[in-house]
Amino acid sequence: MTALIPPLPDLLWEPIIRAGLAEDFGTGGDATSQAVIRPGQRLRAVFRARHEGVVAGMSGVRLAFTLLDPSINVTILKEDGCRIAPRDILAEVEGCAQTVLGGERTALNLLSHLSGIATATRQVVDAVKGTKARICCTRKTLPGLRAVQKYAVRAGGGSNHRYRLDDAILIKDNHIALCGGVVSALKAARQRAGHLMAVALEVDTLDQLEMALSCNVANVYLLDNMAPEMLRRAVSMVDGRALTEASGGITPETAPAIAASGVDVLSLGWLTHSVTALDIGLDIDL
Amino acid sequence: MTALIPPLPDLLWEPIIRAGLAEDFGTGGDATSQAVIRPGQRLRAVFRARHEGVVAGMSGVRLAFTLLDPSINVTILKEDGCRIAPRDILAEVEGCAQTVLGGERTALNLLSHLSGIATATRQVVDAVKGTKARICCTRKTLPGLRAVQKYAVRAGGGSNHRYRLDDAILIKDNHIALCGGVVSALKAARQRAGHLMAVALEVDTLDQLEMALSCNVANVYLLDNMAPEMLRRAVSMVDGRALTEASGGITPETAPAIAASGVDVLSLGWLTHSVTALDIGLDIDL
Amino acid sequence: MTALIPPLPDLLWEPIIRAGLAEDFGTGGDATSQAVIRPGQRLRAVFRARHEGVVAGMSGVRLAFTLLDPSINVTILKEDGCRIAPRDILAEVEGCAQTVLGGERTALNLLSHLSGIATATRQVVDAVKGTKARICCTRKTLPGLRAVQKYAVRAGGGSNHRYRLDDAILIKDNHIALCGGVVSALKAARQRAGHLMAVALEVDTLDQLEMALSCNVANVYLLDNMAPEMLRRAVSMVDGRALTEASGGITPETAPAIAASGVDVLSLGWLTHSVTALDIGLDIDL
Amino acid sequence: MTALIPPLPDLLWEPIIRAGLAEDFGTGGDATSQAVIRPGQRLRAVFRARHEGVVAGMSGVRLAFTLLDPSINVTILKEDGCRIAPRDILAEVEGCAQTVLGGERTALNLLSHLSGIATATRQVVDAVKGTKARICCTRKTLPGLRAVQKYAVRAGGGSNHRYRLDDAILIKDNHIALCGGVVSALKAARQRAGHLMAVALEVDTLDQLEMALSCNVANVYLLDNMAPEMLRRAVSMVDGRALTEASGGITPETAPAIAASGVDVLSLGWLTHSVTALDIGLDIDL
Amino acid sequence: MTALIPPLPDLLWEPIIRAGLAEDFGTGGDATSQAVIRPGQRLRAVFRARHEGVVAGMSGVRLAFTLLDPSINVTILKEDGCRIAPRDILAEVEGCAQTVLGGERTALNLLSHLSGIATATRQVVDAVKGTKARICCTRKTLPGLRAVQKYAVRAGGGSNHRYRLDDAILIKDNHIALCGGVVSALKAARQRAGHLMAVALEVDTLDQLEMALSCNVANVYLLDNMAPEMLRRAVSMVDGRALTEASGGITPETAPAIAASGVDVLSLGWLTHSVTALDIGLDIDL
Amino acid sequence: MTALIPPLPDLLWEPIIRAGLAEDFGTGGDATSQAVIRPGQRLRAVFRARHEGVVAGMSGVRLAFTLLDPSINVTILKEDGCRIAPRDILAEVEGCAQTVLGGERTALNLLSHLSGIATATRQVVDAVKGTKARICCTRKTLPGLRAVQKYAVRAGGGSNHRYRLDDAILIKDNHIALCGGVVSALKAARQRAGHLMAVALEVDTLDQLEMALSCNVANVYLLDNMAPEMLRRAVSMVDGRALTEASGGITPETAPAIAASGVDVLSLGWLTHSVTALDIGLDIDL
Repeated sequence: MTALIPPLPDLLWEPIIRAGLAEDFGTGGDATSQAVIRPGQRLRAVFRARHEGVVAGMSGVRLAFTLLDPSINVTILKEDGCRIAPRDILAEVEGCAQTVLGGERTALNLLSHLSGIATATRQVVDAVKGTKARICCTRKTLPGLRAVQKYAVRAGGGSNHRYRLDDAILIKDNHIALCGGVVSALKAARQRAGHLMAVALEVDTLDQLEMALSCNVANVYLLDNMAPEMLRRAVSMVDGRALTEASGGITPETAPAIAASGVDVLSLGWLTHSVTALDIGLDIDL
Repeated sequence: MTALIPPLPDLLWEPIIRAGLAEDFGTGGDATSQAVIRPGQRLRAVFRARHEGVVAGMSGVRLAFTLLDPSINVTILKEDGCRIAPRDILAEVEGCAQTVLGGERTALNLLSHLSGIATATRQVVDAVKGTKARICCTRKTLPGLRAVQKYAVRAGGGSNHRYRLDDAILIKDNHIALCGGVVSALKAARQRAGHLMAVALEVDTLDQLEMALSCNVANVYLLDNMAPEMLRRAVSMVDGRALTEASGGITPETAPAIAASGVDVLSLGWLTHSVTALDIGLDIDL
Repeated sequence: MTALIPPLPDLLWEPIIRAGLAEDFGTGGDATSQAVIRPGQRLRAVFRARHEGVVAGMSGVRLAFTLLDPSINVTILKEDGCRIAPRDILAEVEGCAQTVLGGERTALNLLSHLSGIATATRQVVDAVKGTKARICCTRKTLPGLRAVQKYAVRAGGGSNHRYRLDDAILIKDNHIALCGGVVSALKAARQRAGHLMAVALEVDTLDQLEMALSCNVANVYLLDNMAPEMLRRAVSMVDGRALTEASGGITPETAPAIAASGVDVLSLGWLTHSVTALDIGLDIDL
Repeated sequence: MTALIPPLPDLLWEPIIRAGLAEDFGTGGDATSQAVIRPGQRLRAVFRARHEGVVAGMSGVRLAFTLLDPSINVTILKEDGCRIAPRDILAEVEGCAQTVLGGERTALNLLSHLSGIATATRQVVDAVKGTKARICCTRKTLPGLRAVQKYAVRAGGGSNHRYRLDDAILIKDNHIALCGGVVSALKAARQRAGHLMAVALEVDTLDQLEMALSCNVANVYLLDNMAPEMLRRAVSMVDGRALTEASGGITPETAPAIAASGVDVLSLGWLTHSVTALDIGLDIDL
Repeated sequence: MTALIPPLPDLLWEPIIRAGLAEDFGTGGDATSQAVIRPGQRLRAVFRARHEGVVAGMSGVRLAFTLLDPSINVTILKEDGCRIAPRDILAEVEGCAQTVLGGERTALNLLSHLSGIATATRQVVDAVKGTKARICCTRKTLPGLRAVQKYAVRAGGGSNHRYRLDDAILIKDNHIALCGGVVSALKAARQRAGHLMAVALEVDTLDQLEMALSCNVANVYLLDNMAPEMLRRAVSMVDGRALTEASGGITPETAPAIAASGVDVLSLGWLTHSVTALDIGLDIDL
Repeated sequence: MTALIPPLPDLLWEPIIRAGLAEDFGTGGDATSQAVIRPGQRLRAVFRARHEGVVAGMSGVRLAFTLLDPSINVTILKEDGCRIAPRDILAEVEGCAQTVLGGERTALNLLSHLSGIATATRQVVDAVKGTKARICCTRKTLPGLRAVQKYAVRAGGGSNHRYRLDDAILIKDNHIALCGGVVSALKAARQRAGHLMAVALEVDTLDQLEMALSCNVANVYLLDNMAPEMLRRAVSMVDGRALTEASGGITPETAPAIAASGVDVLSLGWLTHSVTALDIGLDIDL
């Protein structure tokens, strides 16, 4: 089976899964399984969707079991990026019953969260179909989870904004104020940024945009909290000399009108900071 | 100022904040601040609520700045557990401008998330006021964040379920099936559990409950997905010999009726797995 | 071979073994083996008991070699929890001679220590056979080793007390003094403890016990430093309404009389803090 | 106050104390203190000896509190290496009551263990007073604790053997067998060892010793399990050309006769692997 | 004193210095100081240049001492980026003699290495003065040291290339071959790269460059191993539509001619992979 | 194939390779491969020498790929310690193209650096062939890399000095000054050093050497910055009663004359602190 989206190496999943398992096993391990399940007992279980959506996080599911016991069998049936329907089986896991139940919650917690992100992303991506607009997340992620949350956005058909503070320049109102104006901020940015580093500028008004355009420095203009009509005028002013990005309270409902304004990118913080987990369960075969 | 809720030691916050800062600083640090802000420049900024709610995560806010630069001044004005209104100032931070802007996103990401949990919890706690029911979270937390997510539930007036697999026995349908029935599962649990370890049993039907009650082993009966009337009958059957806990799709809207059934505990997974971040911003004083 | 006791996942053993190996290999590795043994040379060796006892720590033995070289063959012949006699072979290890000798000390250090704990525990468990009393360890463990020391107690037939400060309430004299008395401490505990969290109270006198019993809050009474006769009276006062636990200087010699008092639990700190290592050696097959 | 023995930097204590605190605080922190102690309440407590001995581990005691809360006051009254009598106060700690009680067990667990090692070492050192023999520990330490266990031996007036496998060559029977004899092992060792690396050889018989002496390579002869008379003959054979070390089941009772044989070093594994914790308590000032 | 270049937060220096100190202190700490220096003895010492150059790494120097003992006094006299002459004093350190000598090697090892990088960079930067060319490092860094090596290049007046594989697209010959040609590689890159991510293309010939220019996708053309005359033609072909970068065996001697070709960037791997340490010593004030 | 030099266990390589990969993959992974290479595409590539030298670091090469993907095939053709000629193939790697290209830089960065050390060492070792002198490195290593840098010296035919501050005593001028003279420093060292710990003394003059020889304590005399003739006189004064070591600015050119003086050891800091990377490339088979 070919991956639908380029995978992240296990190297990036493993510390997250280890953290989840360590939080769950604590000092004594799974007291319930130890008490009521025979050590030798085996079990087969399936991850089953209870809601439609897009799946993300299957590497984490696999590791939640194999880090507990390398001899367990995990079969992935729905790769990250797949659309899934209720009752679809996403993966099977077969092995020592104590291991299957021991890894269950860690696997489900991450899978449901990341699939929730992928599902929400896909919803907005679908909403703007037919426009050229990309759907993009932000740096509003949870500590320790940025790599996998950003990956889940890609699994949902979205695109990523900056990964960190060091991979692009993004000049906001505070920077402008501290630096003494848009022009001096842009000049400083261009001069000191690495030659492979893009410069983005956040603007609130068309006047600001006009002044910035005259500098011819920014690669991207982040048009903050503008209505579709104003976005349209901004896009027209930029006229292909740079990319345009709309941001500020965009929802699946407002996305189509915003995308229709001709902006290149819509960025939405809630894709990663206020996501609803996708409902997925582990059903035991008995 | 006295803490409203017992604090967690920094020991538990620090690795989370370090992870967030490391994700944001990467290899090169904050390229924008480096490019457009003078190293010596100082800044004062305030964390301001944009929405009403309950605050949680102030230790994380403080550490997001002091781990970057111990000489920075952070003043907490709203302790964890406080109800806040839009425009309330939650904290002030004053120091080197590059540090203030460098720690901003890590601080806001965690604060907004945990305050979102505290706010949601408080909403449900308020909804069941007048009943004896406690509002409780589950183990449906995000990897690496369990300690602070559970703490945020307490900040919202809620209570915590198991922290891990090792601190209480919770027998679910799968365990019963694997162990050969409710009675043998309960006996095995009581015999092998530590003497300070509670035993909880999840039941789906009143018949199961009746059988379990005859064993007189469980300290808590988790009544899964029962309607209020059925819960009322279950509470009456248990008759104070153990605690009763309702779970399964409980919302702020359904909580009052469920609590009115007389159960001791309502447990809600979404408090930690599907939380909406509380909208809080960092405003610069210029 | 079926495990005699529920195993701990390798996840909990691995950091301990890595620490031990790192302490031993340092910067340059095993200078002696490097100097006097040919890289290609193979070796077979057996772990052999030099004293009777109970074995614990075999997962650690396996990892001490496989973390150095995954291709090494380790065969466990005596599972954790087995009683062993002098000259019994506990495990065989076969592979590259440098690896066998490189992992030897790490393996033996942990195995001898944990088997010492299991052996001491078994001695006390056997001493109270015929009573209902469980033998229990405390939180008097060594930093970094709590999970495996508590596991070794289980391997010896014992039971575990609290794992940590967060999984049960244990009110001691200092808490009572700070809280203003037994009654207010118990009330505060019951109100604020999680619903799955047991409340234990340490009492020194029967008067304290009487006052505490009137509150009907504690799940366990820890009867500290009481003579058997006084324990008998305490047990009779509690009369099955809670569990009773004796503690304070209990030895294999005094345990039978204490257990005969009818208490449910005997807890002994020295099982983990002052254990004599079990004498086990690695014999080379040449 | 001048340290009695050269201190270890906190760098080596800190991970051990962090591990101990993490094991104790888990996910939820100190449930008992949270439930029954007001957050603002302050407390003063003293570490008091309940038994005579030698103290070791005071840096760990200090860190057990300051890592929880840097504002706590810890005053060390008995430095590592001090002889202490029952009821002696070793240290005072004053600060937030939740912190004092939260760090108590981590502090006591390490302090009692290391002071137990220092006390046992001092007992043997005193037993051989008047001879030139040093008392030495081995690599039979617990994983993660080697640096502090070896330090405790120094605090008790003892000396350290190898720290690791990489700082000296120690040729044992297995090495000799694998290398094809004492002579070839010694030659290989001398040729391949670093020029600052000592070579020690374990011998069981005087014949072996004689053969080894003819090579004139070893800096130290480890005389294993020899009776005092045989040791005396070995010392006479070596005649100052190398150091001599006695090992194998040495106790405080047998040490004087062994030391009287004229050997330079007595090495004892049980100083670190089978130590009895020194009884020390934390008394609250109320 | 104002920093000459934007500093890196201690967060990025600390793990490196901890690693260095841990490697040096091992299990037993500084045996020499422990043996020959009184614990109470104090010392003042200065870091003194023995060669001219540019300094980088002063945060590391400070941490090498303060991580051992927070009470030590470290005064930085030459900030990172300063040009220094032989016998210049770079920093003073005053405190416990065992700490000063204990941190010496860790401090010097990092300082000499990073100052070597800064010095080499400055040499090339000076060599191309008068042209517009920037001097740039590559990803040819040592594991664990990338952040500080890249920082040292900035301290020497240079600029940084990609920090990692995730912050820009760099298409090399292997990618082109695997993707089926320059055009399809560029199209795939533009389509799938984040909107803030630059696309660079490595070309070996002017034909390749011409084909690439027709796609109008790449932001940077990396002109590999071209002689100055060929570079001049390439620059002229690109004609300001993208940035041009020369790479391949550039030395301080060849840099001026290459820079004179009009390229925007010269990138040199040896600045970080084959650097000569700057000779700096620690002189004790006695 | 038998290893030419005793290997280091993967335990010591793994954290270094993980650090390198983490620095390269960052948050998003390899953006270029994700954009332009099909996930299913496979690749075969060879590590090929572009310069003659001695290879070191093959375990790191293997881990750079297998830590990304355990199913990749890595075949080592030239073991550490081998002399290699330009165009020699050192290793083959075959597997998923994204993995091969993803691990490339981490593998090459470490391999080139360590092979540079081995090559430089071998050059000096060869230069002194025919004398008894060993070539030795120092503690002038890079933080986090000491174990592998010292290993690379051994791969080049060299020998290691102290690994750390705790494995031998090395008395320098500062220690002598602080201790009140050579004689008191030597006496303190002998008395307090472990019995397996060598004592080395650095001397600048023959007078110092004479005074030191009269104490008969040092095992090694480090003759600092002496010309060959003076070294010859020093060797003659020591006359086999201890080892002699020359240090201070030794190059491949000056080494033969210094070695001819009869010293036992030449130590050279630049072998690890100022090494030129060996030119090795990864060639793709297409």
